[in-house]
Amino acid sequence: MPQYQAPMADYQFLLKEWLSLDTHYQQLGISDFDFELANEVISQGAKFAEDVIAPLNRTGDEQGCKLENGKVTTPDGFAEAYKEYIANGWNSMLGSADYDGQELPYSMAVPVHEMLHSANLSWRLTSMLTESAVLAVTRHASEALKSQYLAKLISGEWTGTMNLTEPHAGTDLALLNTKAEPQDDGSYTITGNKIFITGGDHEWTSNIIHMVLARLPDAPAGVKGISLFLVPKFLLDDNNEPAEANAVSVGSIEHKMGIKGSPTCVMNYDGAKGWLIGEENKGLACMFTMMNDARFQVGLEGLGAAEASFQGALEYARERVQSRAPQGVQNPDGKADPIVFQPDVARMLLTQKTQTEGCRALAVLYSKYMDIERLGNDEDKNTAGQVLQFLTPVCKAFMTDMGLEASSLGVQVLGGHGYIREWGMEQLMRDVRIAQLYEGTNGIQALDLIGRKLTRDKGQMMETTYIEFGKLVENIQDDTVKAQAQALLDDWRASSADCLALDPADVASAACDYLAYTAYSLIGVLWYSMADSASRSENQTIASAKAKSRDFYIARILPRRDAHKVAMKAGKASVLSISGSEFDYL
Amino acid sequence: MPQYQAPMADYQFLLKEWLSLDTHYQQLGISDFDFELANEVISQGAKFAEDVIAPLNRTGDEQGCKLENGKVTTPDGFAEAYKEYIANGWNSMLGSADYDGQELPYSMAVPVHEMLHSANLSWRLTSMLTESAVLAVTRHASEALKSQYLAKLISGEWTGTMNLTEPHAGTDLALLNTKAEPQDDGSYTITGNKIFITGGDHEWTSNIIHMVLARLPDAPAGVKGISLFLVPKFLLDDNNEPAEANAVSVGSIEHKMGIKGSPTCVMNYDGAKGWLIGEENKGLACMFTMMNDARFQVGLEGLGAAEASFQGALEYARERVQSRAPQGVQNPDGKADPIVFQPDVARMLLTQKTQTEGCRALAVLYSKYMDIERLGNDEDKNTAGQVLQFLTPVCKAFMTDMGLEASSLGVQVLGGHGYIREWGMEQLMRDVRIAQLYEGTNGIQALDLIGRKLTRDKGQMMETTYIEFGKLVENIQDDTVKAQAQALLDDWRASSADCLALDPADVASAACDYLAYTAYSLIGVLWYSMADSASRSENQTIASAKAKSRDFYIARILPRRDAHKVAMKAGKASVLSISGSEFDYL
Repeated sequence: MPQYQAPMADYQFLLKEWLSLDTHYQQLGISDFDFELANEVISQGAKFAEDVIAPLNRTGDEQGCKLENGKVTTPDGFAEAYKEYIANGWNSMLGSADYDGQELPYSMAVPVHEMLHSANLSWRLTSMLTESAVLAVTRHASEALKSQYLAKLISGEWTGTMNLTEPHAGTDLALLNTKAEPQDDGSYTITGNKIFITGGDHEWTSNIIHMVLARLPDAPAGVKGISLFLVPKFLLDDNNEPAEANAVSVGSIEHKMGIKGSPTCVMNYDGAKGWLIGEENKGLACMFTMMNDARFQVGLEGLGAAEASFQGALEYARERVQSRAPQGVQNPDGKADPIVFQPDVARMLLTQKTQTEGCRALAVLYSKYMDIERLGNDEDKNTAGQVLQFLTPVCKAFMTDMGLEASSLGVQVLGGHGYIREWGMEQLMRDVRIAQLYEGTNGIQALDLIGRKLTRDKGQMMETTYIEFGKLVENIQDDTVKAQAQALLDDWRASSADCLALDPADVASAACDYLAYTAYSLIGVLWYSMADSASRSENQTIASAKAKSRDFYIARILPRRDAHKVAMKAGKASVLSISGSEFDYL
Repeated sequence: MPQYQAPMADYQFLLKEWLSLDTHYQQLGISDFDFELANEVISQGAKFAEDVIAPLNRTGDEQGCKLENGKVTTPDGFAEAYKEYIANGWNSMLGSADYDGQELPYSMAVPVHEMLHSANLSWRLTSMLTESAVLAVTRHASEALKSQYLAKLISGEWTGTMNLTEPHAGTDLALLNTKAEPQDDGSYTITGNKIFITGGDHEWTSNIIHMVLARLPDAPAGVKGISLFLVPKFLLDDNNEPAEANAVSVGSIEHKMGIKGSPTCVMNYDGAKGWLIGEENKGLACMFTMMNDARFQVGLEGLGAAEASFQGALEYARERVQSRAPQGVQNPDGKADPIVFQPDVARMLLTQKTQTEGCRALAVLYSKYMDIERLGNDEDKNTAGQVLQFLTPVCKAFMTDMGLEASSLGVQVLGGHGYIREWGMEQLMRDVRIAQLYEGTNGIQALDLIGRKLTRDKGQMMETTYIEFGKLVENIQDDTVKAQAQALLDDWRASSADCLALDPADVASAACDYLAYTAYSLIGVLWYSMADSASRSENQTIASAKAKSRDFYIARILPRRDAHKVAMKAGKASVLSISGSEFDYL
């Protein structure tokens, strides 16, 4: 693998020219922020990702995590890098200023997050989930809990986890049976087993704060009887310092396909002391505060892996000399040409590139709406909230599906060498594969999109999203391109509206294809918009590259959209009529 | 993972009813073979795969191979299983009767080969490449070499390898520079380094026979200066028994993403003694004898992995209880329903199933033409040869792409558990990923198909394939279905013919999409044909399952064909206009 280089030029174009970051910040009334500052922050983040985190990626995969005497150790260098990360303030970018956070705009933080994922997915996960825990505590915890825990979670002096899954309860949290019994002192006693807990234990910090879903003794059945608890690894003393060990232990470390540098733990709660976050039996709402944040971040994992894989494949394709290019000799002094000139290799690289840059534009747009949701006026907040709710499952599922496709193409560009561990390309594929599974499988994302966000909402969020994307189309200056983009958007709106009449089983049957159809449609619009914006850039390379990339995307990637559109209309009988031994003839 | 169960019922349907095996054998004049015998052979092969090979698959992945003191050791049980394999005659199924082979029809052997791949891909590779080496020796070696080596390669007493790739020469064999110097005794001295050598060393047999591509001192440049040599690990004594060690050594074992139970070696030839196979400088033709056989077998690897993953996913989906099915309660006594009733899970399972069964039909049809090529009259041999040449890259590339898709879906059905090694689903994905790379990357297969097989041949092989698939359509009894299948086939022929006018760069630009378009089109025809045949089956489960599966395939998988058809027509500019810093803005 080449040394990772953060895609600064693309972010500079996206933020300054395409998104008009200065105007965006002015409209939000945060005129002390501008593109120059954002560029400085992101550049520093890029440097940290490149110089500190990326070099630990391969060794982290080879070493993995260890559990010895009940304590988890992460790969060499991980803990030191984390200490540098929090010392430099990266953990507190988004945290509330009331608790010493920096409250930077999301549009500054999201690029850094992509870069951290590219550099080292395993390393990044623990701090990512801490940010999700921070959100849950900030929005739902009592002032007492906040005063004890929030500042240290925001700074990163302590990390946070999400404890949802149990062996028999993953997608269906209604089935979970970890118990919480109220105690006289206002705390609760938590008993149960959780699996797949990212950052469940490690040697990085003096405490770990677990967010645990559990059920009260008299709780209603199902998801309406779930509560969220804060359970520290070490109980705090009177000075709010970690003291006595809580009854929390690591049962084992999961043996995984990838993200081996990330300690994924089985956690045992044996009467551990915890405190309620939010109201009793309202844990699901608190959990979704964490989950929605994590879902977008997981989308960024797909994006980050795709970028890293593209870089590895591109460098190899430029250096690997093999056969002559069919369009003519490219390297007359050599016996063969670099494979980057092979049309089929260029096809793979451009698939990686245009999928990655399209998803990056979507992520940047998403971060803009996150800024608006936090700082805009009430009407804008409402609009932004609808767009974010609609786009969250799209970002999570499509960007991670794309991450697997791109990282697999990266392996393919290297041929046999792609399969050899030392090259690092196969690690990206193994690492990113988790992202399609956790924080709700991509099938669940698709059901969320077409079920909760489209049909149950009677199309309102979809209409809002249509209007907002329409503004991008409106700004396109070339009338022919504008008409193409509008047609794409209109087709999507019409087919989305058709889904409103479907019954629940038809909805579920169409879900995954509808999500892919939506993503290709909307990212197609983004490509039209980006290339149009780039045509006015002073950076001639960006201008020509975005135009050619758009043409590639429209000609060779966007046709997949039609396949998904046909498939999503096949109806429930296409998947439900088969049953029993018709599956396997046994 | 559940215990692997070989798909006997599907093979019984395909061979007896769809392919009419008895008639097929009668037409070839081998009336001592019939379906009953084939069923018996395949059933025994199934039992061997299920009971002996499959149980070694997980431990093989965990243990991997070791190189100590220059000697390679494979995982526990692998060598013993191999001894049982050759003792039971499985290695000699296809070998020439002149050298104690059984000369079974391919249509009997191919099902067993799929099952071995499903059971344990790592274990199977060494014997698979021995079969390829057998072909090269049988068709191209001198009688002297045959008498020394062939019987023991056919029985499996010794294994064979293919040594093509060098660090700087993979796809482009013209660049290879392993040297072969002629000696006075008629042998050659081989010097050079080869990488990615499957079965390069192991403890299974008393000798290993390497097929090595090398260049003579006065050889012409490029691929016209490559010769093939037989280089044994141990030189034979006067009794043709392994004696003195040859100057061949293992430099290292490759660290790979998967197939960890298979010893993939770096081989060093330091003046090793070898013997020419075929003529000097004609090594490429001999190599293609091996390679074409291996390419189809690699396609079977994709098929085998897909079947194994489907079985694992189906069993999990039947047992895993999570949420209610949207079409109504399925499990009223439980708190939730098995996820097999979730429409989106059924979609994933049916994608695995219909892709797998479609590819299996293609493999069975391919094996029929292999029988004809060996035993038919001259005209039929010629026809069969054309069909096989055309379909070889399709089988290799499409079945392995499908293998990755299906095994990734298998992981997805299991959710987070799919990512945990103990469940075995992620191993299938890691193992099968190699199949898209070796024996010519899938990009090379696509170039072979659209370049050598379609355009350079001026469409003749394509026309022959069209005619042969047309016979399947002709046999469809439902006129509506027949018309649909014919329309699909005609569309493919027309678009294939359009490619004949393309220049070389357009051809290369279209290659991968043309291959996928071809595969979906032809397998679509096979689904129409299979379901029609099944409608007359006495097995009512097969009849209804094939009809429903066809409907699923046509409605939800076949639309991908149109996306590939659009993409393949985009032209070379879509991939070649971008260059230099337009790729990465750096």
